[in-house]
Amino acid sequence: MLNIIPSLLTIGNFLCGMLSIFSVLHQRIGKAILFICLGCLFDLLDGRAARKFKATSVFGKELDSLSDIVTFGVAPAVVIYNIYSETLGSAALFMALIFSISGLIRLARFNAKHSGLSTFIGMPIPVSAILLIVLSFVLKPAYLVVATILLSYLMVSHIRFPSFKKKHMRVEKG
Amino acid sequence: MLNIIPSLLTIGNFLCGMLSIFSVLHQRIGKAILFICLGCLFDLLDGRAARKFKATSVFGKELDSLSDIVTFGVAPAVVIYNIYSETLGSAALFMALIFSISGLIRLARFNAKHSGLSTFIGMPIPVSAILLIVLSFVLKPAYLVVATILLSYLMVSHIRFPSFKKKHMRVEKG
Repeated sequence: MLNIIPSLLTIGNFLCGMLSIFSVLHQRIGKAILFICLGCLFDLLDGRAARKFKATSVFGKELDSLSDIVTFGVAPAVVIYNIYSETLGSAALFMALIFSISGLIRLARFNAKHSGLSTFIGMPIPVSAILLIVLSFVLKPAYLVVATILLSYLMVSHIRFPSFKKKHMRVEKG
Repeated sequence: MLNIIPSLLTIGNFLCGMLSIFSVLHQRIGKAILFICLGCLFDLLDGRAARKFKATSVFGKELDSLSDIVTFGVAPAVVIYNIYSETLGSAALFMALIFSISGLIRLARFNAKHSGLSTFIGMPIPVSAILLIVLSFVLKPAYLVVATILLSYLMVSHIRFPSFKKKHMRVEKG
């Protein structure tokens, strides 16, 4: 029975992504951002729970990526697009699309080519999502466009980033 | 060079999902539905292109599922939620979440347990998405809630559905 806890936590992450998008529809941007951060928490917990309950599986890994694209790829893009679509026009659309498409490619590659290393190849999408949101508050719009391109590049790059949660173990054990 | 065409078509599907959600933000529901239908077209073409150009791969399969959850899981849920959130309140939220979570589970299971059969186990998510949208026009709200529960059940069920595009071959060949 305990072995469904990791999947429930992953679904919790997905739920946060959906609620973040719905919050944007109601123009509740603060709430939308809060749900993305809460999604991060669920994302940190699901891998740990899977290892703790020895419930690592391919199904869990797939569920994880599918949730990640929604909470850390789509939801931040919707937030950024909603904030800047009136002032930046097509540049806001460009930022939202380049960020989410890079996240998509990163997640597909992460699942397909499992390195087994203790590092991530390319910046993990939750990190990029949080950085995008933080930068959207501190940077002027023109610099934010540049920062979004840089974050998008870092996600699909082959630069190694440290893995604090050792998420890759979920597959190897599964 | 031709072998990147299937992935570009899949990214086209993802792009349709994103543009559908952005259209809802601008209250352009017709446009949002049109993008979901266009996503269906890209989804039908990518598998065929992969087989034609002998470019089937695990990366392509992962890209496909990640795009499907956005275009056929998240976007229809956002459309339905936006149409009914004022009139149905929490029932609209329930419909949107049960549909998208069932789609999520269906896609994760589809990737994890590849049957190799010429049928789909559980209703494919693009079919459910199109049916949900069609039914939202013809059914009264109370019946739509019931229909959404039924569609969600059919996605996660073990009922076999015919596969017209033989999408599963994408993995077996990859």
